[in-house]
Amino acid sequence: MNSRINNLQAWMSEQQLDAMLITSPKHVYYLTGFATDPHERFLGLLIPRGEEPLMLVPALDYEAAHAASSVQSIHTHDDTDNPYEILRKLIPGNVKSLGVEKEHLSVSKYETLIGVIGAGSYVDIGLPLREMRAIKSPEEAERMRRAVRLVEDALRAGIAKVKPGVTEIEIVAELEYQMKKLGAQGPSFDTMVLAGAKSALPHGHPDGTIIREGELLLFDLGVYSDGYASDITRTFAVGDISDDAKRIYDTVLNGNLRAIEAIRPGVTFGSLDRAARETIASAGYGPQFNHRLGHGLGMDIHEYPSIHGNNEDLLREGMIFTVEPGVYVPGVGGVRIEDDVLVIASGVEVLTTFPKTLTVIG
Amino acid sequence: MNSRINNLQAWMSEQQLDAMLITSPKHVYYLTGFATDPHERFLGLLIPRGEEPLMLVPALDYEAAHAASSVQSIHTHDDTDNPYEILRKLIPGNVKSLGVEKEHLSVSKYETLIGVIGAGSYVDIGLPLREMRAIKSPEEAERMRRAVRLVEDALRAGIAKVKPGVTEIEIVAELEYQMKKLGAQGPSFDTMVLAGAKSALPHGHPDGTIIREGELLLFDLGVYSDGYASDITRTFAVGDISDDAKRIYDTVLNGNLRAIEAIRPGVTFGSLDRAARETIASAGYGPQFNHRLGHGLGMDIHEYPSIHGNNEDLLREGMIFTVEPGVYVPGVGGVRIEDDVLVIASGVEVLTTFPKTLTVIG
Repeated sequence: MNSRINNLQAWMSEQQLDAMLITSPKHVYYLTGFATDPHERFLGLLIPRGEEPLMLVPALDYEAAHAASSVQSIHTHDDTDNPYEILRKLIPGNVKSLGVEKEHLSVSKYETLIGVIGAGSYVDIGLPLREMRAIKSPEEAERMRRAVRLVEDALRAGIAKVKPGVTEIEIVAELEYQMKKLGAQGPSFDTMVLAGAKSALPHGHPDGTIIREGELLLFDLGVYSDGYASDITRTFAVGDISDDAKRIYDTVLNGNLRAIEAIRPGVTFGSLDRAARETIASAGYGPQFNHRLGHGLGMDIHEYPSIHGNNEDLLREGMIFTVEPGVYVPGVGGVRIEDDVLVIASGVEVLTTFPKTLTVIG
Repeated sequence: MNSRINNLQAWMSEQQLDAMLITSPKHVYYLTGFATDPHERFLGLLIPRGEEPLMLVPALDYEAAHAASSVQSIHTHDDTDNPYEILRKLIPGNVKSLGVEKEHLSVSKYETLIGVIGAGSYVDIGLPLREMRAIKSPEEAERMRRAVRLVEDALRAGIAKVKPGVTEIEIVAELEYQMKKLGAQGPSFDTMVLAGAKSALPHGHPDGTIIREGELLLFDLGVYSDGYASDITRTFAVGDISDDAKRIYDTVLNGNLRAIEAIRPGVTFGSLDRAARETIASAGYGPQFNHRLGHGLGMDIHEYPSIHGNNEDLLREGMIFTVEPGVYVPGVGGVRIEDDVLVIASGVEVLTTFPKTLTVIG
């Protein structure tokens, strides 16, 4: 049994659960190493308390599950079976209390499960999974370093294609082509390239807008690699930009650096957000930094923690999250500078290495 | 009140429900015209029986909801509110029976809802929504014609870039760039370009594989436009291909044509699948056509109905689905030819117009 499943076993004993059923493909992957998208078909990892886990997978996934999964006992169902009935027979003895993923399971599937299993209670197992996922293992951190390297290489190739007259979507196409060519699974979210006035729209969409000299150009992009996401934002000057735009850039950069300097185990997430926000407000751009500082990053592009001024949870060694202050001035443009950071015993390792000094491209 | 909401009102009366709560963004869009992705925030359309519907939206979505939605009564919540408490106050009188989307709602949200609303019963409203969505209105069909035109234009531009020596992912990048340039919202699924032996893998992934003369080249792609998906597959010859490959092509084309000829209101979905399958089997490729004939298409890329030999549901006017037989021969290659079709009173309108005669490209 691997250490993650051992952690769940310990939690199960504390909570007096008889078994746990993991049904989200992401968590099956996290706990067993077997990645699949079963679409409408049933996929389940069953962990009886104090016993070896077992898996129930679609018949056509058997070979792949056997090859990739740390779980030895793999059972299958085909399209004419009722997978819940098979599951019932696999659970040893009576199940009084079953742990399930209430945030992932639909009510339809839950009602089917209840009808077949007939346990006395169903307990949400979201908390121990969230807690485990928040602390990245050295191996997970290494996957994320690789996801960061891939997106930074794609970014380098993408900005080499920027010149006045090309469009946002041409650069998006180049970036996403480079991601795949470099070996990423794909973008971890819709790649953003926003030119000029559009850089001031935090939720703008790239389109045929032409990139022009004298403007800001904002890139926000990430990739998935081996199941883990990266996420980086850099803002560039296309040719010579106004003093106003430069002042915004310097302000955001200072906010980014201050927040990163504050990172170490034991401080609150709120204190990081405030460090950046106070720096930016003192330069007069407080109202134009109109979103949270960042978010947890891992198997999901947005996961626990949410980094805002009211989050008094404490940073712990092994957490990975984004630091991404931004200032958006209608008519002038927007600047956001986003890094991915790992909390280490001595403070912080900044995973993103792409230069942050204002760079002229095009 | 629009006709879709009227339909739900009628069903609610039959079922003796006091109200319905729609929480999936797609169905809020379908019923009101307001498209949004609320991420973690609550979005709900409440339809009390016999009364005007109302909406509860995140405060930052108010303007957009007001502009886009057919619903007049729009209420908001901000990040410090409990949206379920607000919802409770908006429901007139006691709710004994509430309709909810059990296939979309997570157990966590359902339990929160139950705790606050305290209705006697919660009924799944998936069926009337599925039934309505299966029959496309003339306006929906028109949106899908546009989504088909966009993807066909992108395909035309993409094949113009094919020549021996380029890679699958270079062509994918070109296709997805063209989709955005032409004005689509984006791909409706991961664009597939599979060269040579890889065309025989129905779930292959494009990568740096080089496109070579004398091979088959399979394209499977679609776009979203105005919330509706298209989905087309065409297979081409890069230069001169073997007689075996040509024979496979002709067989699949015959299967595709036979299935389409069988389409008219009142026949079973199973009969379409069998029409294609018998044609292909009689040419000796029965076992190599190893998937269903097609699937419903609309706001989702895969929706009701599933078109396989055991589906004895009847075709009805206004249904839109794919017809996509394929034959996959390891070592030789695969051919799939997929059209999007609309069932009309007189038979069928084939929405996809891209030529199906074997075409040499590169």
